[in-house]
Amino acid sequence: MTTLRQLGERETIRRLAALLPTRPDVRMHIGDDVAVVSAGEYDFLLTSDAVIEGTHFLADAVPEQIGHKAIGRALSDLAATGGEPLWALIDVVAPPELEAERLERIYQGLAKLSSTYSLAVVGGDLAQGPVLELHVFAVGRVPAGQAVLRSGAKAGDAIYVTGQLGGSIQGKHLTFEPRVKEGQWLRQNQWATAMIDLSDGLATDLNHILEMSCVGAELAMETIPISDAAKISPSQQTPLEHALYDGEDFELLFTVADERRLAFEEAWAQANFLPCTRIGHITQEPRGILLIDAEGRRTPLARDGFEHFTS
Amino acid sequence: MTTLRQLGERETIRRLAALLPTRPDVRMHIGDDVAVVSAGEYDFLLTSDAVIEGTHFLADAVPEQIGHKAIGRALSDLAATGGEPLWALIDVVAPPELEAERLERIYQGLAKLSSTYSLAVVGGDLAQGPVLELHVFAVGRVPAGQAVLRSGAKAGDAIYVTGQLGGSIQGKHLTFEPRVKEGQWLRQNQWATAMIDLSDGLATDLNHILEMSCVGAELAMETIPISDAAKISPSQQTPLEHALYDGEDFELLFTVADERRLAFEEAWAQANFLPCTRIGHITQEPRGILLIDAEGRRTPLARDGFEHFTS
Repeated sequence: MTTLRQLGERETIRRLAALLPTRPDVRMHIGDDVAVVSAGEYDFLLTSDAVIEGTHFLADAVPEQIGHKAIGRALSDLAATGGEPLWALIDVVAPPELEAERLERIYQGLAKLSSTYSLAVVGGDLAQGPVLELHVFAVGRVPAGQAVLRSGAKAGDAIYVTGQLGGSIQGKHLTFEPRVKEGQWLRQNQWATAMIDLSDGLATDLNHILEMSCVGAELAMETIPISDAAKISPSQQTPLEHALYDGEDFELLFTVADERRLAFEEAWAQANFLPCTRIGHITQEPRGILLIDAEGRRTPLARDGFEHFTS
Repeated sequence: MTTLRQLGERETIRRLAALLPTRPDVRMHIGDDVAVVSAGEYDFLLTSDAVIEGTHFLADAVPEQIGHKAIGRALSDLAATGGEPLWALIDVVAPPELEAERLERIYQGLAKLSSTYSLAVVGGDLAQGPVLELHVFAVGRVPAGQAVLRSGAKAGDAIYVTGQLGGSIQGKHLTFEPRVKEGQWLRQNQWATAMIDLSDGLATDLNHILEMSCVGAELAMETIPISDAAKISPSQQTPLEHALYDGEDFELLFTVADERRLAFEEAWAQANFLPCTRIGHITQEPRGILLIDAEGRRTPLARDGFEHFTS
C-alpha cells in the first residue's frame, strides 16, 4: 500500500491520467495549463483550480481576496495559453457554521475580478464539508490551433518573465493580477513560442516547459527579477532562492524566437504593459536548467518548488 | 451574523447569484440543471457537481462506485437538458494519507462510466485537504436553442418519470445509470417540454419545474412508481413518502404536451428504454403540487427534500 504522500502529486497525476478516456476532438490533454478541445473555428480551453482553507489561504484571510485568488488562478491558466476568458462555474464547499456575510464578501471579490476580464460566472454547486473551498472551472477560447502551449520552445529562444518573483506568501498570492491582457497579446502577435504561468515557482515551471519542449535552458543569475517581498523575507533562504523556488507568483514565463527578440522588446515597451525581463535562453540539450553567475560559472539548478502531498 | 445553516442552500445561492457578472452569450444562468451558453451552431451546457466523503458517500464506500457517482451526477445533469456529453475536468481533494490504490480504483470507476457515454476526462486538479472529494465539471452540447429547460411546462402537459423512485440510499445512489440516451432522445424528438433529473426528490424537483414554468401540478398518488428499496426501507416513512421525498434517484422527470401523449407513449415503448410512468399533469394555477388519492381527495404536497446546510 502506497499513500499519496509517498507517491507525490505528479506521480499520482501520471498514474490517474493513464486511466482516463479521451475523444478525437481533444487536442491537449493533461500536461499543460489548460486542456484544449476543438469546437469549430475556436479551440476551447478548459481549466480547473481549487483554493482550500489551510492549503491555499488561512482561516483569517480577507474574504474578498479569497475570491480574487480563486478566480485569479483560473484566469492565470487561461492567460498562459493566450486565451480569452468566457465562462466559469464555482463549486463551493463550506461548513454549515460559515457566516453568510463572509461568503458574500468572497463572491464580491471574485465577481469584481471576473467582470474585469469579461468572465461570466454562470453557475456551480454549493455543498457542505469540513473546511471552506472554492473550485473554479473556467472556459476560454482561442482561434483554432493557436493556443500557446508549453511544448513550443526551441533552442536559441530567449526566455522572458513578467514582473518580479518570490515572496508571494507575504501577500501577492492573494492579490496578484492575472496577466490576461499580456497573454492574449503574446498569442495574437505570435510572439510567444511557449508559455506557462508561474504557480509552482520559476525553477519548477521552467522545467515544465523544458520537458514538454525536449530542450534545456541557461539562466543569467543576475538578471532574474527579485521582488521586494523576497528581498525582505525573514526566512533563511536567499532572495534569489525565493525568486527561483517560491510558488504562486502568477507571472507569465514565455519564450520568444531569438531573431524576433529586439522587435519583441520594442513592441512590449510600446504596449505599455508591466516590465518584462529577459532571463536566459533555451539550449538544445534537454539537461534541465543551468544557472550562470556573473563570473560565468555554471551550476545545475535543483528541480524544486511546491508539490501537493509531499511538501 | 447569519450562518449558512440558518440561511439554507437555496437562499444562499439566491444571494450569491445576484452578485455574479454575466455576458451576452449566456442563455441560461443559475437556476437550471446546467448553464447554457451560446457558441455558434451549438449551445454548450456547463455543469458542476461535488461528491464529498461524509456528505455524498461514506468512508467505507466501494471506490469504483464513488467514481461512478461523481461522473454519473454530471452526466445526469447533461441528460436532463438533452445534452450530448463532451468533456470533463475533475478536481480531487484528498488527505495525504489516502492510499493511491484507492484513488486509482475511484478513477477506474469514473473512467468506465465516462467512456460509456463518450465523455473525455481532459484534466483537473489535485490538492490536499481534510477529506476525500471529487468535483466534476462537465461540458455537453445541444444544437443552438434546443436545450430542454425547467421552464417549458404548460398547463395540460402530462408528467412522466423514468424508472422507480425512493430508497436510493440503500445502494442506487452509488450505482445509478444516468439517463443520457433517454434525455437526448426526448430532446431530439422534441417530446419533452420541460425536464429535470431527480437529485433532490420528486416533490422538490417537480416544484423546480413548476416555479420556473409558473404553473402547478396534480399527481395521481397510486401511479407514482415506488422502488423495491423504498418498500422494504426500515425507516418510519411510508414507501410513498420515500418516493416523494428521497433524493438521488437520478431518474428523469419531464412533461409532454397532452395532444402528443399517446404518440409519445408508443414511441417510448418502441425505443426499448426502461419503463416510464405518467404520474399526473400540469395545471394552470401556480399553487404547488396537489396529490390526488384513489377516492379523488386532493392534498397539497409539502415542499421538502434534501437541502444542504439545513438538512
